[in-house]
Amino acid sequence: MAESTRLVDLVQTRIDEFLAEQTPQLASIAPELDPFITFSRGFLAGGKRFRALFCYWGWQAVASEGSVFDLAPENSARADLPAVVTAASALEVFHAAALVHDDIMDNSDTRRGSPSAHKRFESMHIDGLWLGNSSVFGKSAALLLGDLLLSWSDELFDTGLRQLPSADAARAARTEYNLMRTEVTVGQYLDILEESSWATAEEAELLSRAHRVIVYKSAKYSVEAPLSIGAALGGASLQQRAALREYGLPIGIAYQLRDDMLGVFGDPQITGKPAGDDLREGKRTVLIALARAGMSSSSRRIFDELLGDRDLEETQVSMLQQTIRDSGAIERVESIIDRNVGQAIDTIRDAPLSASAREQLIQLADTVIKRAS
Amino acid sequence: MAESTRLVDLVQTRIDEFLAEQTPQLASIAPELDPFITFSRGFLAGGKRFRALFCYWGWQAVASEGSVFDLAPENSARADLPAVVTAASALEVFHAAALVHDDIMDNSDTRRGSPSAHKRFESMHIDGLWLGNSSVFGKSAALLLGDLLLSWSDELFDTGLRQLPSADAARAARTEYNLMRTEVTVGQYLDILEESSWATAEEAELLSRAHRVIVYKSAKYSVEAPLSIGAALGGASLQQRAALREYGLPIGIAYQLRDDMLGVFGDPQITGKPAGDDLREGKRTVLIALARAGMSSSSRRIFDELLGDRDLEETQVSMLQQTIRDSGAIERVESIIDRNVGQAIDTIRDAPLSASAREQLIQLADTVIKRAS
Repeated sequence: MAESTRLVDLVQTRIDEFLAEQTPQLASIAPELDPFITFSRGFLAGGKRFRALFCYWGWQAVASEGSVFDLAPENSARADLPAVVTAASALEVFHAAALVHDDIMDNSDTRRGSPSAHKRFESMHIDGLWLGNSSVFGKSAALLLGDLLLSWSDELFDTGLRQLPSADAARAARTEYNLMRTEVTVGQYLDILEESSWATAEEAELLSRAHRVIVYKSAKYSVEAPLSIGAALGGASLQQRAALREYGLPIGIAYQLRDDMLGVFGDPQITGKPAGDDLREGKRTVLIALARAGMSSSSRRIFDELLGDRDLEETQVSMLQQTIRDSGAIERVESIIDRNVGQAIDTIRDAPLSASAREQLIQLADTVIKRAS
Repeated sequence: MAESTRLVDLVQTRIDEFLAEQTPQLASIAPELDPFITFSRGFLAGGKRFRALFCYWGWQAVASEGSVFDLAPENSARADLPAVVTAASALEVFHAAALVHDDIMDNSDTRRGSPSAHKRFESMHIDGLWLGNSSVFGKSAALLLGDLLLSWSDELFDTGLRQLPSADAARAARTEYNLMRTEVTVGQYLDILEESSWATAEEAELLSRAHRVIVYKSAKYSVEAPLSIGAALGGASLQQRAALREYGLPIGIAYQLRDDMLGVFGDPQITGKPAGDDLREGKRTVLIALARAGMSSSSRRIFDELLGDRDLEETQVSMLQQTIRDSGAIERVESIIDRNVGQAIDTIRDAPLSASAREQLIQLADTVIKRAS
């Protein structure tokens, strides 16, 4: 994993460099814009960098040479490495924008244990004894910060494309990137739509609707798209891109299913979220759809009444957890995860991709699936 | 103005075409995404198209040939006309995104006499008898629609750049576009910051702070940037771009100052907004800063208490209007407008730009400044 660790460092350096480039421009407009840089730096520090990693490994997978990082810098680096690092960094900036907007929509006070963007702006408003509603100011300012990060992600991605030696590769990567942005945005809409409208939808459709949210909001966005973008940057053949997609989608689905399980059964000590957090939020996940399908209609009525109640007590959370266990949904989700991972690994074993990348992707599949946080 | 009219038609056609291209993609994901297309089409129909026009005239200004539209289509159209129409359309899509997000921040129920995006989504929620808070759903959905339009504007702009024969021109236009996005986003932040924090700022700084908002939120965004982008698309020399900037900034400032006047004194029959709308909103414009500077401190105290009160009665609005008149601020604003327009026209007269474009820009200056709505 040394190569992945090194990539994560390169991405952090590139992001820091980009933010440093933006700083004098904002400072020249107004000193009051400083929070845009400071908060961005905060949200762009650390994180798992899965998207950047999948982008890198998608690129590496179609390389004919071995690992870039195994060789001495002076004679090793492929000419397009800086382009890939820049594009991978852009994916992380895009993700930061999405999280800033997500937190507004979910009304989340924290992000990775620190105050979310709108909460930070809200505090500025309170501390400055400014006029008007602090919460409204906080959300408006965070909306604009998210918009700025969206623009910046695009600017950075474009810079990456211009560093590429091949115009065809740049165009292919741009197409994948555009697709990703549209899909994740409408996927998020389908998610909030589901939360609002599930009760008026057909009972028989709930599972497929929950699955659709996973596919667009998570699986494609977090795995398939970054891999495809990376592969496109590397000038992948159609066959290579198809193989990476066939790996990426099921891994992405498995990743999100694991996330759903952690949201209900995760250890608060490890996840950093309260136990049963998703139950209080009332998320209509695949796990929940499967659980409901396995309940008697009377249990389901009680279940529906409790799910999404922000004030659930611990005993109620335990009861909901037990009901889900009793429904047999856990075994079903675990078996779907296994099937997806198996399918992904089978695809990758015989794919026309570099050996080191194939091995890495198989390892990444494992990391993604077995994680506890 | 036939050429401008024709351009507006071409832009509408290009936008319709772009939305038609997106339709099958969204439909293939989920039929529930239809509102994203329908609402976008609504927000992208009509409007003044100032940004597209300035982009076009910036491009036309650096053309050595005469008017594109004066000639027969088969032997006239410059090779880069489709690129310019596409880029100009992208500016309008970007603007639609900004308006969707603006309406969320301002909590505006209407946009051009129809319900704003969040209100439309809110109605869907109410009509569908969905769960949760309709207003929250409306705002989250509109936030995502705005994000999607931001991505789409960028996608469309990039398509325009790829249609350009010159890579240098594409790069120059991209740089201007990136600058525009950053400046308008932080300009909007400075605007909401001013509304919240003016009372705790230094009295002596209020005018320059209000001026800074005008420059970044309006003047550069609505006039200078579209002109610069158009000029860059046309391969403008540094001298030509400087001349267009020297024209664009003061015209943009004059445009916004006229807007501020209309917001306070405009005829509701013509503007379509209630009389004194800006007074109820409490906008801290240059007009207001100048008015306050010309008041006795006791009048200013009363003025500050009333300004921004959403429930102002008509007699109170009239009183505020009279106080502004008495302060001499109207004459000062009119003289700033005149000075800016004069400066812009002087610049353009001797600029190394095409004769037809120079004439057109002088006419546009007039339209922009003398408008009553």
